[in-house]
Amino acid sequence: MVNINKNFENLVPSYLFAEVASKVSEFKEKNPDMEVISLGIGDVTLPLAPIVVDAIKNAADEMGEKETFKGYGPYEGYEFLRSKIKDYYATNSANIEIDEIFVGDGAKNDLGAILDLFEETNVALIPDPVYPAYVDSSVIKGNGISYVSGNRENGFLPTPPDFKSDIIYICSPNNPTGAVYDYDGLKRWVDYAVSNKAVILFDAAYERFIADRKLPRSIFCIEGARECAIEFCSLSKTAGFTGTRLGHTVIPRELKIGNSSLRDMWARRQASKYNGTSYIIQKAAEAVYSEEGLKQIDISIDYYRKNAEIMSSALEDMQIEFYGGKNSPYIWFASPDNASSWETFDLLLSHGVVCTPGSGFGENGEGFCRLTTFGNRDDVLKASKKLRDAFGG
Amino acid sequence: MVNINKNFENLVPSYLFAEVASKVSEFKEKNPDMEVISLGIGDVTLPLAPIVVDAIKNAADEMGEKETFKGYGPYEGYEFLRSKIKDYYATNSANIEIDEIFVGDGAKNDLGAILDLFEETNVALIPDPVYPAYVDSSVIKGNGISYVSGNRENGFLPTPPDFKSDIIYICSPNNPTGAVYDYDGLKRWVDYAVSNKAVILFDAAYERFIADRKLPRSIFCIEGARECAIEFCSLSKTAGFTGTRLGHTVIPRELKIGNSSLRDMWARRQASKYNGTSYIIQKAAEAVYSEEGLKQIDISIDYYRKNAEIMSSALEDMQIEFYGGKNSPYIWFASPDNASSWETFDLLLSHGVVCTPGSGFGENGEGFCRLTTFGNRDDVLKASKKLRDAFGG
Repeated sequence: MVNINKNFENLVPSYLFAEVASKVSEFKEKNPDMEVISLGIGDVTLPLAPIVVDAIKNAADEMGEKETFKGYGPYEGYEFLRSKIKDYYATNSANIEIDEIFVGDGAKNDLGAILDLFEETNVALIPDPVYPAYVDSSVIKGNGISYVSGNRENGFLPTPPDFKSDIIYICSPNNPTGAVYDYDGLKRWVDYAVSNKAVILFDAAYERFIADRKLPRSIFCIEGARECAIEFCSLSKTAGFTGTRLGHTVIPRELKIGNSSLRDMWARRQASKYNGTSYIIQKAAEAVYSEEGLKQIDISIDYYRKNAEIMSSALEDMQIEFYGGKNSPYIWFASPDNASSWETFDLLLSHGVVCTPGSGFGENGEGFCRLTTFGNRDDVLKASKKLRDAFGG
Repeated sequence: MVNINKNFENLVPSYLFAEVASKVSEFKEKNPDMEVISLGIGDVTLPLAPIVVDAIKNAADEMGEKETFKGYGPYEGYEFLRSKIKDYYATNSANIEIDEIFVGDGAKNDLGAILDLFEETNVALIPDPVYPAYVDSSVIKGNGISYVSGNRENGFLPTPPDFKSDIIYICSPNNPTGAVYDYDGLKRWVDYAVSNKAVILFDAAYERFIADRKLPRSIFCIEGARECAIEFCSLSKTAGFTGTRLGHTVIPRELKIGNSSLRDMWARRQASKYNGTSYIIQKAAEAVYSEEGLKQIDISIDYYRKNAEIMSSALEDMQIEFYGGKNSPYIWFASPDNASSWETFDLLLSHGVVCTPGSGFGENGEGFCRLTTFGNRDDVLKASKKLRDAFGG
């Protein structure tokens, strides 16, 4: 008789976004004439850059002609793309070799799949508040989980604990808090990982929102990281690829457990359980990483940054405590008057703005809410006015 | 200290295609003027159908306009595609509901990922000869493995053994042998699975090559399969998507282990470890499943079928024993004169034709070789002449 993975029973059902959606739809029913602006979901709204659209169409034409048709590609991605990614890292002051780069169809997928390389006896160290997928994939694997607190005192940038752990999740710029580690902050984690022989799984999905170039855009800007870290990156937010799907994972050659190279294990894993990323989408990504492509995607990123400025200045004017909004597409604000996350959610919704209650991201999220800056400018302007109405600014 | 997955040490390095490539390149160096035709690799050569190319370009345009841009899609795939897949199953006499269909980026990926739903204490039952990914993903998981023999006596269609097992891999039409189960053959497996409370992982990647409509194109044509089987399908060979990447997995509602619905577990797994398939590629797949799309892809499939006929008739003329070639893109032939797989490979290579030695697919493959029918017609015609030269026909 086949035995199922009992760890699934330990998954905590995530009602967060479902509950948000249900409250919003109830509100809309009762207030059919009121405009409701969603700053809740972390999804982009600006279209793909023109150079990316052209690249996809050209690739489609190639695939439609026998002479230029492409069948199976390399599991690790085409070199035309991996060499561009290598060059991109160099502009972020991180030196990565092509054979350390693996193209995939999204950071979330690889963050889940990477656990194949490890035993289920490991303890995962996860920040709270947190992006739920880290917890879920660790639970499915059967890993133990310890938490480190992000909170007011540490500016939602947890520091290494005084206990041991094996697999460390770090996301910077952070989802949901928008907080960004500086060099020293990440160096402490690298030192902790090296001394514990632990592995850092570094989620760099929001790296390009870092405007302050003194802040590291990659864990591989940090000395020692090549011995302990794997980086997961994505074009989802960088280039509006949430529906187009492409990411990459970097595993340095120096990352070894005993005699085992994690890079080589991952290459073997991908050969057995992955069949390469769509050629068409890899051509789209190649266009993103071109000189003109980076210019075009930065227009969208600057647009979202301006959104962040507008919302941040509304919160500043009202002297509401918040994190992020600079170097990050997320704004994480403290509920005025010590209200709970859901109370603030309800208050904002009554004014026609949807945020995400911070308590949905973990215990330490209670009393905070997340706003995303991926909306339309008009909506953002209206929403920041509504914020002022709601909070009496 | 992080512990790595020790099961990786039990993976047998696959030198098969590397050794083929190395022998071929050595031969070409020594015989620079000789034309070498590869019928070794199982990759398609005909381009995407025009309707598919158009769908990709239209989707790219949609993604380039704010009004029609698509961000994150549903983890399980868009309903526009899943409803088409449901209709497709109906034409194959299998009734599937939309919420039992999960779109993904390839059968190999999902065949690996599905093991997340099960414990590592299970015994996998794998046919020999076999597509190597089943073995590799079972080894990485840590499952025990038992084999059932495909051989001359059973026409390379293994029957259920007299011992128990938990996770049963079946591929029909089969890679590498080209053998296809009929209704009764699959019914025996369904009965075995039901009585053992085992799960069948059914790889239907080559279903559309079945021309004889009395043969089942889906495990769900078989009575009882909805209680015991998961089906993995792919457009790789059906529509030339090996480099474009799209597949789907079907898990019926009736498939439960105790109180756990495997369909619901998979939905949860995908929400945690997958982020949906590219919208652009889903639009491409939607075009495949349209009336005109199916007509266009059948032109390619008929082309490959004609290749199979040409090669089959060469083998028949020489009275060489073979399997497949009908209802399948693979031809599995017995080495003349009791030669080993590699001896026959060397003989054919000396005439300028590359096949795949059957011994690379498992013990029972010894003495056989695989030919694929995905080549150009000119190459196939030349190759069948060379086959006659090599085997003295």
